[in-house]
Amino acid sequence: MPYQAVPCRVLSLTGGKRDNDLILPINSSLSVTLHQDQLKTTTTAAASRDFTEDRLWLNGEEADMGHPRLQACLREVQRLAHKRRGGSAEDAGPLSLSYKIHVATENNFPTAAGLASSAAGYACLVSALARLYGRDSLALQVAPETHWPELRVLVMVVSGEKKPVGSTAGMQTSVDTSPLLKHRAEVVVPERLELMMRHIRERDFEGFGQLTMRDSNQFHATCLDTFPPIFYLNDTSRHIIALAHRFNAHHGRTKVAYTFDAGPNAVIFTLADTVAEFVEVVKRSFPPATNGDPFLRGLPVGSASLPEELLAAVVMEPVPGAIRYILHTQPGPGPQLLDDPSQHLLGADGLPRCSA
Amino acid sequence: MPYQAVPCRVLSLTGGKRDNDLILPINSSLSVTLHQDQLKTTTTAAASRDFTEDRLWLNGEEADMGHPRLQACLREVQRLAHKRRGGSAEDAGPLSLSYKIHVATENNFPTAAGLASSAAGYACLVSALARLYGRDSLALQVAPETHWPELRVLVMVVSGEKKPVGSTAGMQTSVDTSPLLKHRAEVVVPERLELMMRHIRERDFEGFGQLTMRDSNQFHATCLDTFPPIFYLNDTSRHIIALAHRFNAHHGRTKVAYTFDAGPNAVIFTLADTVAEFVEVVKRSFPPATNGDPFLRGLPVGSASLPEELLAAVVMEPVPGAIRYILHTQPGPGPQLLDDPSQHLLGADGLPRCSA
Repeated sequence: MPYQAVPCRVLSLTGGKRDNDLILPINSSLSVTLHQDQLKTTTTAAASRDFTEDRLWLNGEEADMGHPRLQACLREVQRLAHKRRGGSAEDAGPLSLSYKIHVATENNFPTAAGLASSAAGYACLVSALARLYGRDSLALQVAPETHWPELRVLVMVVSGEKKPVGSTAGMQTSVDTSPLLKHRAEVVVPERLELMMRHIRERDFEGFGQLTMRDSNQFHATCLDTFPPIFYLNDTSRHIIALAHRFNAHHGRTKVAYTFDAGPNAVIFTLADTVAEFVEVVKRSFPPATNGDPFLRGLPVGSASLPEELLAAVVMEPVPGAIRYILHTQPGPGPQLLDDPSQHLLGADGLPRCSA
Repeated sequence: MPYQAVPCRVLSLTGGKRDNDLILPINSSLSVTLHQDQLKTTTTAAASRDFTEDRLWLNGEEADMGHPRLQACLREVQRLAHKRRGGSAEDAGPLSLSYKIHVATENNFPTAAGLASSAAGYACLVSALARLYGRDSLALQVAPETHWPELRVLVMVVSGEKKPVGSTAGMQTSVDTSPLLKHRAEVVVPERLELMMRHIRERDFEGFGQLTMRDSNQFHATCLDTFPPIFYLNDTSRHIIALAHRFNAHHGRTKVAYTFDAGPNAVIFTLADTVAEFVEVVKRSFPPATNGDPFLRGLPVGSASLPEELLAAVVMEPVPGAIRYILHTQPGPGPQLLDDPSQHLLGADGLPRCSA
């Protein structure tokens, strides 16, 4: 029962939780789903009368299935499946809800680096479980992935530095201690969500990009207003932000827009005709380390020669090696079912193939 | 007509300006005046019928007296002096208000590094001008400098990095673009100001320190919510913040409190009995560069040996050379008149002594 789900770039970030068991966000948010060709989570879930306990493998290593959030997801999907089956005490479905389950999940991108690995992982898990128990899942789509074909995404993975605080724990502290977060959730975000949906529907990159940057900054402002304060941005993040503003100022309009999730890595939104030029600017500003690792990954990037006046106005004090690599991708579809059994992560024995 | 004024550590920071000519703050603020024995601005102002134009020397170099803020200070003091003299068209005072003036001013600490050099400079200028024109100046004092004799201040001057944006320009952008700043100024600061005055009156270091840190963080949060965002804190500032929280957590109470003005340098408030231990912790965390410059300046600091469990809990991943030096000081009195003519910055000819 394998599944692919995708990391989501959150535009209007979920700034906190109002209930830590249900992980209900304190404000609405809006995400761009990235294409699975570049970034993906793959999850296989299986249930069997022969399994003696619930088990979980993350990227090939067995992990604790007792984690409260995992348990909450599992129980909630089972509860809904039970209700859908008529709520009878006897299991009428194709698969008993009392069977133990095995889950294997893998990301093809760094975990716990602020790339929404946990959002993608849970989305994928819930999709897989819902399919396992014969349920459909539902999401509200602002626009399909074909709506804005020129939209491109550059994920800039910053070197070094582990994430110092898990984003779930951090968000709860924010809700408890930040006076600014309350104002953001109640007043600012509802207005911005309406506006953001309009910019996307109208494919208005100027409006979309400006609001994306402002909202990323405001999310990180509420992290700083948390006590003790939470810093996800580091000096490299600051350099990327300054670079994006100089690049836009030079062009006299918003050609690139940054957003940062719970970590120092930047996600840059831009349009196809700007990718080559901006990537060249980034390479000049953060000269890649020559350690043999590919600096450009994902979709191909054309070459661009930079005019002298652009270089002079935008590239300042290069910081060698500060960006590990750039991943070039684009919006993509929702969860995909993997029909080919060879792609399943669990074998016929219900154990991971890779660790077998 | 020489004067000393002092840098002020702002607790509840002035987060912006509601009028850029009058530089009126959009919220109240509260400062601790530091002792002139360690940090000071010295200003000499002179007026003479023989001067042909207004002239200004900053740290020995002639500067532009036409700067709008300087002109605003000068005109306002002259206007008030004129009013006080009865508003007659004829100058009745000891010194004609139509005389041109010469001003020389010097800081004994780095200028434009976020150490409130401009606040200290303007305070000193206005004091000197008011004295020149025979006026008294007025300030509302929450407590005299003798009120809390154990209070100490450690200014941590961070290496490298020039301030990327002048704080006056930055604050105007914040007022114009930050939705969170408005909420802070209208709702948060008025409550905090009352609370802060109570903590100071009661010499409650726990309350004073907690609120100082929270308010510094919130000021920097509104800088980040500004568009384009303003970053005064850098990675070294973040390390100092994390260190202070670990130090307090280890002791189970607030023993040190940080505040940051418009730059990466930290100002640490603490009590006399904690100085030696915390300074030792800072030296272990940011091993001083061995370039011959003194790392500890100002008031003497005793030696302390650190218990192993403190070291293990608090000192993590040392960053050599990240802090240039620590200045140890304490609260001090307001502006002081320098009677000794040898200390005046302008000679009998109305020109700077040092550049003569």
